Amino acid sequence: MSPKSAPSAPSTSSVTMDKIVSLCARRGFIFPSGDIYGGINGFWDYGPLGVELKNAVKAFWWQRMVRDRDDVVGIDSAIITHPRTWDASGHTENFSDPMVDCRACKKRFRADQLDDAGRCDARDGSSEHDLTEPRNFNLMLQTHIGASADAASVAHLRPETCQPIFTDFKRVREVARQKVPFGIAQVGKAFRNEITPRNFTFRSREFEQAELEFFIHPSEREKWFAHWLGERNRFHTDLGFAKESLRNRAHAADELAHYANAAEDVEYLFPFGWQEIEGIHDRGDWDLRRHTEYSGKDLSYTDAESKESFMPMCIETSMGVDRTCLALLCNAYEEEEIGEGDVRTVMHFTPEIAPIKAAVLPLSKKLAEPARALERTLRRSWNVAYDESGNIGRRYRRQDEVGTPFCLTFDFESVDDGCVTVRERDSMEQERVAITDLVSVLRERLEPVH
Amino acid sequence: MSPKSAPSAPSTSSVTMDKIVSLCARRGFIFPSGDIYGGINGFWDYGPLGVELKNAVKAFWWQRMVRDRDDVVGIDSAIITHPRTWDASGHTENFSDPMVDCRACKKRFRADQLDDAGRCDARDGSSEHDLTEPRNFNLMLQTHIGASADAASVAHLRPETCQPIFTDFKRVREVARQKVPFGIAQVGKAFRNEITPRNFTFRSREFEQAELEFFIHPSEREKWFAHWLGERNRFHTDLGFAKESLRNRAHAADELAHYANAAEDVEYLFPFGWQEIEGIHDRGDWDLRRHTEYSGKDLSYTDAESKESFMPMCIETSMGVDRTCLALLCNAYEEEEIGEGDVRTVMHFTPEIAPIKAAVLPLSKKLAEPARALERTLRRSWNVAYDESGNIGRRYRRQDEVGTPFCLTFDFESVDDGCVTVRERDSMEQERVAITDLVSVLRERLEPVH
Repeated sequence: MSPKSAPSAPSTSSVTMDKIVSLCARRGFIFPSGDIYGGINGFWDYGPLGVELKNAVKAFWWQRMVRDRDDVVGIDSAIITHPRTWDASGHTENFSDPMVDCRACKKRFRADQLDDAGRCDARDGSSEHDLTEPRNFNLMLQTHIGASADAASVAHLRPETCQPIFTDFKRVREVARQKVPFGIAQVGKAFRNEITPRNFTFRSREFEQAELEFFIHPSEREKWFAHWLGERNRFHTDLGFAKESLRNRAHAADELAHYANAAEDVEYLFPFGWQEIEGIHDRGDWDLRRHTEYSGKDLSYTDAESKESFMPMCIETSMGVDRTCLALLCNAYEEEEIGEGDVRTVMHFTPEIAPIKAAVLPLSKKLAEPARALERTLRRSWNVAYDESGNIGRRYRRQDEVGTPFCLTFDFESVDDGCVTVRERDSMEQERVAITDLVSVLRERLEPVH
Repeated sequence: MSPKSAPSAPSTSSVTMDKIVSLCARRGFIFPSGDIYGGINGFWDYGPLGVELKNAVKAFWWQRMVRDRDDVVGIDSAIITHPRTWDASGHTENFSDPMVDCRACKKRFRADQLDDAGRCDARDGSSEHDLTEPRNFNLMLQTHIGASADAASVAHLRPETCQPIFTDFKRVREVARQKVPFGIAQVGKAFRNEITPRNFTFRSREFEQAELEFFIHPSEREKWFAHWLGERNRFHTDLGFAKESLRNRAHAADELAHYANAAEDVEYLFPFGWQEIEGIHDRGDWDLRRHTEYSGKDLSYTDAESKESFMPMCIETSMGVDRTCLALLCNAYEEEEIGEGDVRTVMHFTPEIAPIKAAVLPLSKKLAEPARALERTLRRSWNVAYDESGNIGRRYRRQDEVGTPFCLTFDFESVDDGCVTVRERDSMEQERVAITDLVSVLRERLEPVH
């Protein structure tokens, strides 16, 4: 049940994780949580640009998966969940990783991340370990609810956002007056006590998922699996991923989780190799059957017209939001030579997910007043930056480095002709645009309809 | 440090909590988490309409507090926080409620919620209790990180979203290139192990906060406190609260939390009395001083021009998102007599926060195709419902009950004249609008600029 990793392959791109981590810290995308206290392993904070990137990815997902469709509704369930949920789902029994300790160096590893010679595949690659036998280590974080700390009060932080969808299935279907086939979507935090968090935010202990459970008639499994695989690939393409950096990878029969009948990963070619950013799974009726059994509540469905009763099957699409953001950061990064010895760092975010949509740059501080007025107008629609310090070339570089699609230079002529210079990030081409047209021009370029 | 309650006063409105709870369950706004397993006290799930309402309130807050301003930036920090955070903030020592047990009925209470005669003010109002002496009970939920369960691995679920703002203060200020005065905002989950969760979602164990910490020069405290009190009152007015249901209440000196120099609550008149939905606090430099002391990192600020170094003071605005949603549900609710013996339940949500913005209602199933096409067009911009079952009056009532501002009736004439009937929720007035104008007409009415 724990996430399986595909065999890693080295990335051909020139971007390294060190460069991404450094940019993220320097410009405030993502940095270690509790940094002033030495950090806390496996936990990350999103800074001013990171939160805008992440919110844009989540909004794009919600728009595509919920708002655009009449057959999907959303929910937002509690993170702390009834403990029986995880008995039914199998997590209490099975959601564990094999853990080994090294008697020599006292470090702890996941047994399935060591090769046969007992070498760790992380940085300390060459050292050999004196390992204990693997023990199962349950990855769920637990806490106690109420004033006593006995077993009755144990509750778990959800290790995935999908199970509450199953426990809420019957009520949500009824209140939303939906008929099978239909789906329930959720975006939210999940927690796993990873033995060895690593690769920046890729494997962290607190993370965000965007999941859809789509409930169908058993006879339509192949059709809907294909539908959702296609939809999810389209989604990632529209997010701006380069084609050669994405692939689908079907799970082999011996790789499938106990609940899955078919599974296909969307993988991105990170600097540390091909890794999953999303899974599309045919979960069959495993979850609804188990929750029916454990709760005593019948979760089957009766078709109002045919009167047929059946337990719906479920196609799941499960995206890691943090992983997708990390992949987008890697995907966007370029050190581009734009002149002899002149290299700019530029993030080629697709405009819809760029943290800052436009920057207003007055050519002189004397132009602050009208430039600020323009900034205020644009802020009603988008996240906008204002920068009046340093020469204009340097200010362009600052915006390039965080992926701002448009720089709007307000110069002395602007006061007279009512125009600003719009400089496009990727081509660096400039054009003169009337301020009165700016909102509609930007809207067209920032919010294309897919 | 635990939230203080103002003296309760009975609501004059006719809405009761039973009606709100019932509507929320029936129409899928909010219902008990883990319901099929008997629920879990103090935890709630938001259904399809609830998640849209909550997301709209959060988006409105983010727009007003972050996007509209050039002196505020956002973050999204981890829920599980470095344990030293709470030592520094005082939570480890002080964040507790006085707990008493009844030796007779074995129930547990907050001592400050019982009157002098030892009567509980909840439903079992009249019974007297045989109470133990009060003991302090820390409200933070804790968990263990890593593979061992010793003291070193203890970590807490944040009981408030503001402390990570303080621990990230220095880095965020630097990466965002902000000068004091400026603010850092965050929206996210927080957890408190309330002894007696009650009043539906009002006092729950998992909840969402929207907080701003605004850092200022010590000489400007009164000015900025007044500014933010005004801004926050304007915000709640714009959310659509009736004037007579909102009030400000300044904390008396003996009521102030240990970190606060001044505090004013925004209270809403719930069916269970006046209660806080937001607090505006002058926290002074308590937090930055304590984190400087506990981390050994200097969090003071040096003004680049005057070269003055000082510890910034902080004005906080702290809104309970779930409480605000609950207040909005109470505020919106009306049972309106619209004819002899004809009563409709209508939710008067202000359009910006209405979960569904418009409903497309074909007068006949034969019109499904063009009506569905209209629905698809509108879905690109808003959350839209489609309903073709039952007579049109009944369909209007369904939408009234969830506060949909506009019903768009597609009839047989629509095919010829390219118009639909737009029926406004509150006035129930109808007008004929060209389908080609619909997006701009709706945009104007749904997204007014405040």
